[in-house]
Amino acid sequence: MGCYYGARLAQHGMDVHFLLRSDYEEVRRNGLTVRSCNGDFALAPEAIHVYDDVRRMPPADLVLVTLKSTANDQFKSLIEPLLKTGQPSEVHTPTAILTLQNGLGNEERLAELFGADRVLGGMCFVCINRIGPGVIDHTAHGLIRIGEFGGGASARATRIAALFNDNGVQCQVLDDLRRGRWEKLVWNIPFNGLSTVMDLTTDRLLANAAGEDLLRRIMAEVLATARAAGVPLREELIDLNVRNTREMGAYRTSMHVDRQAGRPLEVEAIIGEPLRTARKHGVATPILASLYDQLRIISDGRSAELRVT
Amino acid sequence: MGCYYGARLAQHGMDVHFLLRSDYEEVRRNGLTVRSCNGDFALAPEAIHVYDDVRRMPPADLVLVTLKSTANDQFKSLIEPLLKTGQPSEVHTPTAILTLQNGLGNEERLAELFGADRVLGGMCFVCINRIGPGVIDHTAHGLIRIGEFGGGASARATRIAALFNDNGVQCQVLDDLRRGRWEKLVWNIPFNGLSTVMDLTTDRLLANAAGEDLLRRIMAEVLATARAAGVPLREELIDLNVRNTREMGAYRTSMHVDRQAGRPLEVEAIIGEPLRTARKHGVATPILASLYDQLRIISDGRSAELRVT
Repeated sequence: MGCYYGARLAQHGMDVHFLLRSDYEEVRRNGLTVRSCNGDFALAPEAIHVYDDVRRMPPADLVLVTLKSTANDQFKSLIEPLLKTGQPSEVHTPTAILTLQNGLGNEERLAELFGADRVLGGMCFVCINRIGPGVIDHTAHGLIRIGEFGGGASARATRIAALFNDNGVQCQVLDDLRRGRWEKLVWNIPFNGLSTVMDLTTDRLLANAAGEDLLRRIMAEVLATARAAGVPLREELIDLNVRNTREMGAYRTSMHVDRQAGRPLEVEAIIGEPLRTARKHGVATPILASLYDQLRIISDGRSAELRVT
Repeated sequence: MGCYYGARLAQHGMDVHFLLRSDYEEVRRNGLTVRSCNGDFALAPEAIHVYDDVRRMPPADLVLVTLKSTANDQFKSLIEPLLKTGQPSEVHTPTAILTLQNGLGNEERLAELFGADRVLGGMCFVCINRIGPGVIDHTAHGLIRIGEFGGGASARATRIAALFNDNGVQCQVLDDLRRGRWEKLVWNIPFNGLSTVMDLTTDRLLANAAGEDLLRRIMAEVLATARAAGVPLREELIDLNVRNTREMGAYRTSMHVDRQAGRPLEVEAIIGEPLRTARKHGVATPILASLYDQLRIISDGRSAELRVT
């Protein structure tokens, strides 16, 4: 995720600094390659800044967080060194932190650590997979929707959106980030959850009436939870999600890819937090509850539980 | 299943006639091999009777039905030729049909076709896998519990049980076959269902609290359904099933093996019928309902739906 959006901005001349781990050596030597449905491109090693240690990175105007939410316990050590110190001024705005992570609880954790006024959240509507070290496959879409953690519009959110829109990434500003998060969860919970638990691509989930019916019932539980939490979403979102996902073909969701690769699953951010929200508000979500347990059977011991107060 | 129990009876000199399909040629040439936790044995081709066409088989005193329940639409053509015709007498008892198939609805279908008085049902508590053509791996247990479809004790059930017990297979007679069916479903539904849906062996399902908790909640739904259907089962069955399954280690359930082999899944007999029973009696079984839908996602188009009235 970080490589893709960072590469888009760097492609258009923005000053992007990438913090990499497993791909560091490969990208330092060979740069980044993006195979994209909108046209392939590559960034030579000398055209980008890559690091394997955050302490060597310069302070930033904007930190894009694309860490897996199971590693949120590393927020402090990874992000603190990137924040600008000193008094804000005309030419020195405080560092903004935009998390593009999945699910609930990420902005809250960042706000706890670095102050709520620094934090924005965003949802990416994009189909990308890392198909090799430093090689990203972008197969569809790309829209980002961002919003202030504190809610409401802001000049800052508008500036960041313009930064994306001017540089090859469609970006919209949301007045209500929570609404955006819940809207995305209406897709993420059923499709990530079920595809991962059953080891099936999304087209298989939608291939018969039983699958579509189950997906719709899970979406209805998420809608009911969002409504109870004060985020009334349109019922039509269910039809829309079914229709759009059909168009995606044999898509492997991010969590499904993680299961197949034996990596930690973002169970808590994507399902655990929404389920706790449902329980707090007394919403009956029996399918969500069993899906959550099914996911925890697989993710046991591999994902640190997110504890969001 | 049929090869194993048939081989046990044949091993002790009973006159067993096997109807085979895919393994016919191999067994005709090389006989049957049973690798068993109780000692391996083999039956030479000349020691057994094998057929690939029921029309060449002699009428039988007892027909053991071990067909997969997804093929129950073949009952008439497969079983009718085996029934004895003519008046019953001292030396000529009517053919009894004992189904050892999984789940609900099999006895009902046999009774419809051949008369309720012919039908008995049985549950096998055994870990066996076919590991090659004519080669059976028996890893644990072996008990059969049988009972009259019409309920109650009978001289016939006692005779059949003695036949098994005298010939290397532990067998008990149940006064209440329905109770036995539901008792077994308390294991079959959670373990077959969840292992198949998630592509995990039983030890993985029980490896953490989330898995055990989910299995227990599914078992509680089955118990509630059985109770509503007039079959009160002991709550302790849940603990007992958890404990016994732990001892089975990394067991692959029959339905899980079928998923991995791309064969039809016994979804209707094992979960569909019990779920319809729950609905008929107004029992809330939300986890069962979503497990059923998950199974139907996989079994779509591969399992003929059992229609039991």
